[in-house]
Amino acid sequence: MSGILAVGSMAFDTIETPFGIQEKVLGGSVNHFSLSASYFSRVNCISVVGEDFPKEHLTLLNHRGIDTRGVKIDKGNTFHWSGKYGYELHEAQTLATHLNVFEHFSPEVPESYRNSDFVFLGNIIPSLQEKVLSQVHHPKFVAIDTMNFWIGTQRESLIKVISKCHCLIINEGELRQLTNSFNILTAAKLVRSWGPKLLVIKRGEYGAVLFNDGDIFSVPGLPLAEVKDPTGAGDTFAGGFMGYIASQPNFNLSRFTLRKAIVYGSVMASFIVQDFGFRNLLPLTKKMIDEQYQRFVELTAFNLV
Amino acid sequence: MSGILAVGSMAFDTIETPFGIQEKVLGGSVNHFSLSASYFSRVNCISVVGEDFPKEHLTLLNHRGIDTRGVKIDKGNTFHWSGKYGYELHEAQTLATHLNVFEHFSPEVPESYRNSDFVFLGNIIPSLQEKVLSQVHHPKFVAIDTMNFWIGTQRESLIKVISKCHCLIINEGELRQLTNSFNILTAAKLVRSWGPKLLVIKRGEYGAVLFNDGDIFSVPGLPLAEVKDPTGAGDTFAGGFMGYIASQPNFNLSRFTLRKAIVYGSVMASFIVQDFGFRNLLPLTKKMIDEQYQRFVELTAFNLV
Repeated sequence: MSGILAVGSMAFDTIETPFGIQEKVLGGSVNHFSLSASYFSRVNCISVVGEDFPKEHLTLLNHRGIDTRGVKIDKGNTFHWSGKYGYELHEAQTLATHLNVFEHFSPEVPESYRNSDFVFLGNIIPSLQEKVLSQVHHPKFVAIDTMNFWIGTQRESLIKVISKCHCLIINEGELRQLTNSFNILTAAKLVRSWGPKLLVIKRGEYGAVLFNDGDIFSVPGLPLAEVKDPTGAGDTFAGGFMGYIASQPNFNLSRFTLRKAIVYGSVMASFIVQDFGFRNLLPLTKKMIDEQYQRFVELTAFNLV
Repeated sequence: MSGILAVGSMAFDTIETPFGIQEKVLGGSVNHFSLSASYFSRVNCISVVGEDFPKEHLTLLNHRGIDTRGVKIDKGNTFHWSGKYGYELHEAQTLATHLNVFEHFSPEVPESYRNSDFVFLGNIIPSLQEKVLSQVHHPKFVAIDTMNFWIGTQRESLIKVISKCHCLIINEGELRQLTNSFNILTAAKLVRSWGPKLLVIKRGEYGAVLFNDGDIFSVPGLPLAEVKDPTGAGDTFAGGFMGYIASQPNFNLSRFTLRKAIVYGSVMASFIVQDFGFRNLLPLTKKMIDEQYQRFVELTAFNLV
């Protein structure tokens, strides 16, 4: 297995929630995705950072087995996102998006990554997602995430790259925005008609839904005593989901591999939201992850005697 | 088994949704509850209607094995509720509540009902819920539902009657209003401290959560092609939940009886929301109910090979 090739942002996030403000926390879609997926699989990152980005963070990623040779260090500042959450801690309101070094970034996939079986196109400008995908030879499984900002400003190029993927991973509200449909069955049909066989809908504390052609799977969220910051929860979810699929000894997208992958995604997301930034992803162990998986089993089982 | 004694409103509902307006549809909490529970158990109703209430509807309830001897016919008009839903079809905005015959109603539980093992205190003035409960000798299981209107106007008497029940069944938003707590774990602890060992949180299309002392169960909603009107979905849920518990040959509140009861509640609710009023509850069969239960199994199973 060649591991997962992941493109997305490495960023500074300034996050305001009713529980506090955190300035310039290390974040970005590929950062959260990689840290989460690294518990399951090898990950190779494609991104760009500015000279202000702490080198030690790349070292930290390397220590988790994440290959950062595809992370370019450019003149200028690192991508900076600012957002705000209300008490319901649902979708963020974007306050500012400073693309900075991403403005003129043209990703080059290193030769050694071009045979990747698994590709994750993390939330970033759709044209960059497509540029990365076009450089991979014969990927077996490509998943893509996005956000309201790109749906609003780059709809056509976004749908074009979605149509080349096997799986769309998206927030429920953003799915509605993308498909102009309130009903998720109708929305799922439209996405299927564009190309992706799989649709994963992220519902925050209400869990996730998987549309797998005709088959539908839904898992609720794990009730948590404390939720401090949902930033990166979606990418962390995607990391667990895709990491689990990539960890299978024989590549398969069977009904139960995919369902378990959704639960592993939910497990990883349930860890990260309990603190600001990615802190809660660092001290995890396989045992903690499996125990949390077991909590999902306990939470949802009913059809036993 | 003595069946379920249920008190609540028999009403006319005027319902506005983005899909149409329906004037004076037959509704009310005990009406929906009884129709739903009647597929599992005998039900004895306590309520009051005005002279404008169609007698044929009581006959219809009787044909479903529902005992309406406790439904008083009074001079005046039947309770009339008007509400409005937006596209999200979540909680209704109450436009008008005309108590009418309920204003001076003093419920008398017929002698033959006073030994009921199961009592459902449907959404109505808390003092009436308490008056009914006080007339039942030794109930084994008492569940109560309520709504934002009573939480806002009768908080103290509502908490007083809740404290005498085994189970509180409530919408998520209304639970937050009642407990002044956003986090459901904190809210559940507070409700537990008032008395009820069980708390059932209704989340509309996102399903339901059961707090059973330390144990938590959560089931997502079944994605539906069409949702026309959620009025009565909560009472219909309660009917399936309580009906299933009352249908057990030996009274028990075991972990799996309760979990399955939550799913049967969800099954019944998934039927009613697909049309206005209670129409979709009438043509059901045991087979249809069990097939829908099986859809919930298919929707949620992941821990199998």
